[in-house]
Amino acid sequence: MQNINVLLYDGYTTLDALGPSEVLARMKDNYLIRYISQEGGIINGSAETQIKTGKIYEISDSDILLVPGGFGARKLVDDTKFLAYLKTLADKSQNVLSVCTGSALLAKAGLLKDKKATSNKMSWEWVIKQATDVKWIRKARWVVDGKYYTSSGIAAGIDMALGFIADKHSSDIALKVARSLEYIWNENKEEDQFA
Amino acid sequence: MQNINVLLYDGYTTLDALGPSEVLARMKDNYLIRYISQEGGIINGSAETQIKTGKIYEISDSDILLVPGGFGARKLVDDTKFLAYLKTLADKSQNVLSVCTGSALLAKAGLLKDKKATSNKMSWEWVIKQATDVKWIRKARWVVDGKYYTSSGIAAGIDMALGFIADKHSSDIALKVARSLEYIWNENKEEDQFA
Repeated sequence: MQNINVLLYDGYTTLDALGPSEVLARMKDNYLIRYISQEGGIINGSAETQIKTGKIYEISDSDILLVPGGFGARKLVDDTKFLAYLKTLADKSQNVLSVCTGSALLAKAGLLKDKKATSNKMSWEWVIKQATDVKWIRKARWVVDGKYYTSSGIAAGIDMALGFIADKHSSDIALKVARSLEYIWNENKEEDQFA
Repeated sequence: MQNINVLLYDGYTTLDALGPSEVLARMKDNYLIRYISQEGGIINGSAETQIKTGKIYEISDSDILLVPGGFGARKLVDDTKFLAYLKTLADKSQNVLSVCTGSALLAKAGLLKDKKATSNKMSWEWVIKQATDVKWIRKARWVVDGKYYTSSGIAAGIDMALGFIADKHSSDIALKVARSLEYIWNENKEEDQFA
């Protein structure tokens, strides 16, 4: 059983976090979802959500980190304390998954240096300006480089989470999960039709 | 500005509620999302979410009600107090949208009598047994009958919410919202590929 630590912050996009969480929660024999934040407590997301989070002091090196994007990320790219916290979490985690502008946070924390990555297409110019030492791939739906999975905008996070299951388990299992969600999986990570 | 009251209960499917909420929240000049529950407070959903809700005593007749499905619905179909509460909310609302087995709750509350409706395909046999006075349409992705919008499972709620925007505003606006979510909208409500 692996923990999936979903890192929330004020102004994150709710679906960036909850889409992949719902996907991964379907693998209940494998993953336990936990919502965390820097200080713990209620976090305000898009669509007026208020979600309860825990403050985690220790994480295991088999844990998985999920980082959503959102307008809140625009402020956090300049928050050195947050970026240091993110780096500590990411360094310890077995895999790190980001959705949308979550990859700008990873990049700004220095975690994607010389790695391939993608991000939201609507915020593309802003994202790539945050870190020029990243091999940004615009046309990808999601990108895998080492332990890092970065996806394009919002709904692309659902596709990436299914891709993660396909890589770690099998494509058949990923398709079964997609069916259980009645979600039509965009399996091809190379092509984002919004790019 | 219309309120969208998202009715949560323990054991609802998080993405049933948060998918459509994220879609409708993009129309921020038109809709305000509010999470409500019978008693208020923190509600436990799938994927280990804990979301804060309010207890609403009065709703306006221009409000919209959104009812998710989930394993919690299996118990609530026999909860006469909950069904009476749901009926009061639905009767007052200008539109009522349900996702997944949320339509079983509407049906059991007597709100879909002689109406066309659909629901989750995986729980289909259970749903149609809850109310034989409903014209259940298996192959639909979502169904509109009068003020009621009922969708198939989970991700179909996102398609339905975009369909709702297309009906109330325009298809172009719905497509714009879908693009902002990088979501590939399944526009054809008649055909659910999971049916």
